[in-house]
Amino acid sequence: MQRATNVTYQAHHVSRNKRGQVVGTRGGFRGCTVWLTGLSGAGKTTVSMALEEYLVCHRIPCYTLDGDNIRQGLNKNLGFSPEDREENIRRIAEVARLFADAGLVCIASFISPYSRVRFTGIDSEYEKPEAPELVLKTDSCSVNESIQQLVDLLQERDIVPVDGSYEVKELYVQENKLDLAKADAETLPAVQIGKLDMQWVQVLAEGWATPLNGFMREREFLQCLHFDCLLDGGVINLSVPVVLPVSTADKERLDGVTAMALVYEGKRVAILRNPEFYEHRKEERCARQWGTTCKDHPYIKMVMEGGDWLVGGDLQVLDRIRWNDGLDQYRLTPNELRQKFKEMNADAIFAFQLRNPVHNGHALLMQDTQKRLIERGYRRPVLLLHPLGGWTKDDDVPLPWRMKQHAAVMEEGVLNPESTIVAIFPSPMMYAGPTEVQWHCRARMVAGANFYIVGRDPAGMPHPDTGKDLYEPSHGAKVLTMAPGLISLEIVPFKVAAYNKIKRAMDFYDPKNHQDYDFISGTRMRKLAREGQNPPDGFMAPSAWAVLKEYYKSLEKA
Amino acid sequence: MQRATNVTYQAHHVSRNKRGQVVGTRGGFRGCTVWLTGLSGAGKTTVSMALEEYLVCHRIPCYTLDGDNIRQGLNKNLGFSPEDREENIRRIAEVARLFADAGLVCIASFISPYSRVRFTGIDSEYEKPEAPELVLKTDSCSVNESIQQLVDLLQERDIVPVDGSYEVKELYVQENKLDLAKADAETLPAVQIGKLDMQWVQVLAEGWATPLNGFMREREFLQCLHFDCLLDGGVINLSVPVVLPVSTADKERLDGVTAMALVYEGKRVAILRNPEFYEHRKEERCARQWGTTCKDHPYIKMVMEGGDWLVGGDLQVLDRIRWNDGLDQYRLTPNELRQKFKEMNADAIFAFQLRNPVHNGHALLMQDTQKRLIERGYRRPVLLLHPLGGWTKDDDVPLPWRMKQHAAVMEEGVLNPESTIVAIFPSPMMYAGPTEVQWHCRARMVAGANFYIVGRDPAGMPHPDTGKDLYEPSHGAKVLTMAPGLISLEIVPFKVAAYNKIKRAMDFYDPKNHQDYDFISGTRMRKLAREGQNPPDGFMAPSAWAVLKEYYKSLEKA
Repeated sequence: MQRATNVTYQAHHVSRNKRGQVVGTRGGFRGCTVWLTGLSGAGKTTVSMALEEYLVCHRIPCYTLDGDNIRQGLNKNLGFSPEDREENIRRIAEVARLFADAGLVCIASFISPYSRVRFTGIDSEYEKPEAPELVLKTDSCSVNESIQQLVDLLQERDIVPVDGSYEVKELYVQENKLDLAKADAETLPAVQIGKLDMQWVQVLAEGWATPLNGFMREREFLQCLHFDCLLDGGVINLSVPVVLPVSTADKERLDGVTAMALVYEGKRVAILRNPEFYEHRKEERCARQWGTTCKDHPYIKMVMEGGDWLVGGDLQVLDRIRWNDGLDQYRLTPNELRQKFKEMNADAIFAFQLRNPVHNGHALLMQDTQKRLIERGYRRPVLLLHPLGGWTKDDDVPLPWRMKQHAAVMEEGVLNPESTIVAIFPSPMMYAGPTEVQWHCRARMVAGANFYIVGRDPAGMPHPDTGKDLYEPSHGAKVLTMAPGLISLEIVPFKVAAYNKIKRAMDFYDPKNHQDYDFISGTRMRKLAREGQNPPDGFMAPSAWAVLKEYYKSLEKA
Repeated sequence: MQRATNVTYQAHHVSRNKRGQVVGTRGGFRGCTVWLTGLSGAGKTTVSMALEEYLVCHRIPCYTLDGDNIRQGLNKNLGFSPEDREENIRRIAEVARLFADAGLVCIASFISPYSRVRFTGIDSEYEKPEAPELVLKTDSCSVNESIQQLVDLLQERDIVPVDGSYEVKELYVQENKLDLAKADAETLPAVQIGKLDMQWVQVLAEGWATPLNGFMREREFLQCLHFDCLLDGGVINLSVPVVLPVSTADKERLDGVTAMALVYEGKRVAILRNPEFYEHRKEERCARQWGTTCKDHPYIKMVMEGGDWLVGGDLQVLDRIRWNDGLDQYRLTPNELRQKFKEMNADAIFAFQLRNPVHNGHALLMQDTQKRLIERGYRRPVLLLHPLGGWTKDDDVPLPWRMKQHAAVMEEGVLNPESTIVAIFPSPMMYAGPTEVQWHCRARMVAGANFYIVGRDPAGMPHPDTGKDLYEPSHGAKVLTMAPGLISLEIVPFKVAAYNKIKRAMDFYDPKNHQDYDFISGTRMRKLAREGQNPPDGFMAPSAWAVLKEYYKSLEKA
């Protein structure tokens, strides 16, 4: 037979990288072959078709090559002799290669008896694969369980992105690997971290910054600073750098090691693997993150005083992080929150981020949101009242007092405990306005929230130099509603509430009756509480107000 | 031979409709086969690869099955006997059907002699298709013309959307409406603009900032500052604010008008309709755009000295903008450039942005890029040598001298005039590093470039305070290759070139022979030219060097 001669490979003009940007909306070249092999009746077709459906639903282009289907087309001129069986599989493998090259996940499900065509080996009736990447026990586990195992594998291979909208990526070491990891950690070079860093370790460990594998590497850092998003697994909103600054001395000591232990208060709390050191360009980082480089901004101050290098890498966190301040039971991870929502049969979760005491204006807004969700047909909307629990600036009310105040609000029935979860969001506060509000929102999205209430001047503060608003108060809500990568979540803009002197209650502001309203600023509220006075009736639940007075009294003693 | 028996079709769970939503970002199921047939050497491969690229650049997933490539894989066990030729095509047709079913446009280019396998007919040596949907005269028409005919056909069939987003949006008033608009402009309240503003008017008028309708409104401004993109019409990269600052006096005078005339040097040059005034938060704008607020940065200095308000709105530009400096013939609009590329039968455009004299290192790079494009199968790659023509800082070489220098380089044949266009990019220079390089790239994309060469530290400069690089030199290329919304263009990263003392020529740097290389910095180059000395042979075309010496001599006189 004449074999092909003078056949030369024709280069495509389109690089895989380019194809990745184009095929599918998630970005990144995903071309690969998932080869399912097994005896007839093992469930290959069922699994392959279900996997195809899962991937398509997650917007990953893919196609299943099924044995029977191919037998009716490409391979209809083949029988079942050993040679034909082998040619059958050979052609499939070549077609799968073309699909993968086109940027699709090609799922091939065939008996494929001869390992020679799945790469080297000797013939026999049915050769088990020598080193399968995954074995599915289709007799003992459900199709969904099989799919989950496959998806986990594809995620490890970065073919399926881990996406906040449907998976939480926790970085705690699995129970069964914990002893090993701890023993390992003891042998590794150590780097000391502070309380702020430890709060970020908790944020990462619990998966609030999903899909990060650890502290940001330079590539992720640049994507975050320039685009407020991670871009390698499709567009995933992540607007604030989650980074670990280290000193030049630490950098010089540790550059080149394959792993290091993070030590907090003398305890090895985590392992950072495959560390990547890169320059902490502080001025540029602050400028892009805060829109100012003012050294008197309380978080910028910490950045400027911190290390001149950043170290990214893959994080393995050892023990569950606890602060032993009597509030740990409120520190629920995204997965724990999702579980709670499930148990409550919630069909809508609306999240309310706060770092201040709750007054009846907030309550009014939350009640109103719940009402509107029910009008929209939700039957069991649940409120996630989610105070920020990490670092805050000195003149904010500390977490323990805020939690007391929130508890009093709940006890007075201002919010319905039946449909409210109070939990603590472990992140530090950055006072980065429109950039930070995206972080506050996306983190709640990871925890399962599908509505997020955004107020006036979120994460804002006065400019330390001028005393004016550091951010234009409407920008936070504007930027948040435009922000990419917040799929699966709806933004609920804040209505302005003020004290209605006629109704003697907090009320949505109506400009037509401006004279009826009294705007009670945070400053005035603090002044009243500090002086032991009371606000007008209906401004705040009395017992909650009492907590504030108690707090400010405690300051005088100090 | 045993034929396949008991083979039943396995249904996919995924409907074509569902697939259409997922595969490709444009929506709609596009699965089909484009079957190119013709005698060997007719140009099938060239056309198919170019069509593939066109479709990918328009975000339509597709894949070319090429005869030679398939002969090396799926069909490597086939020869050229009539039966084998027929089986060759039969298999291809089956594979094409699978690709189409997966939702891709499958482009098959084969001699496919027997019409039986392209459906019914009788045998003969080469049977012309009886009813081809399209006949391409590849001997008499260019590749681009062929592609256009194919695209027209695919558009008729609703496989390729008829799409405006790739058109250049010029803001010049149409000829037939010009008199009316000019009369209108005379009646409108006026605002005086400066030369820098006028350069931005030209950028907008000619469509470099497509799809902007005029100076940015607040919504676009916020999208640009936070995400480096416009987000309302899909993700479109636009990283630098295209804004018009005005004084508080102008704002107070003009707030509320429905339109105003822009006046430059006493002439009404444009109308700004439905103006929107918003605060020019200079510190925040500079921090986010430049990653610094250093007041000695030359462009930031201009921002800080400029108006405290920004006014966005819809722009209508009256007469074609001319500068009457003898260089206007080089100021080609994106549409004029596209027309030139067409006339040159270019099948690839690679753009080179510069604001400095061209030395042989640049030339080497451009020649190398052209070589690599030809290796990738392009037949007529054209270089767009595109010096920036707007405002630059005082110590950069002024445009007229740079144009003289570029002309000398061309005359000495360092670059091939046959495949090079020298034109002027009207934008001002911002020295905003990774943020600005995206602007430089996207503007050339609008002009039809599909490759963009990015160098070390693009749009960088020394930090005015420290003298160190304002931007980490590798960040520009890193950020550009990650930037969203640059879809129809591929980034070509810069290779480091240096003077090879052995070869006595510019050469790609090889660290193994470090000692052979001499890195001639811009500073050293300027020093040599200023002192009337010559650089080592082969560094720059002598007549081009003479231009530089002449320029620096002219400075002494001044």
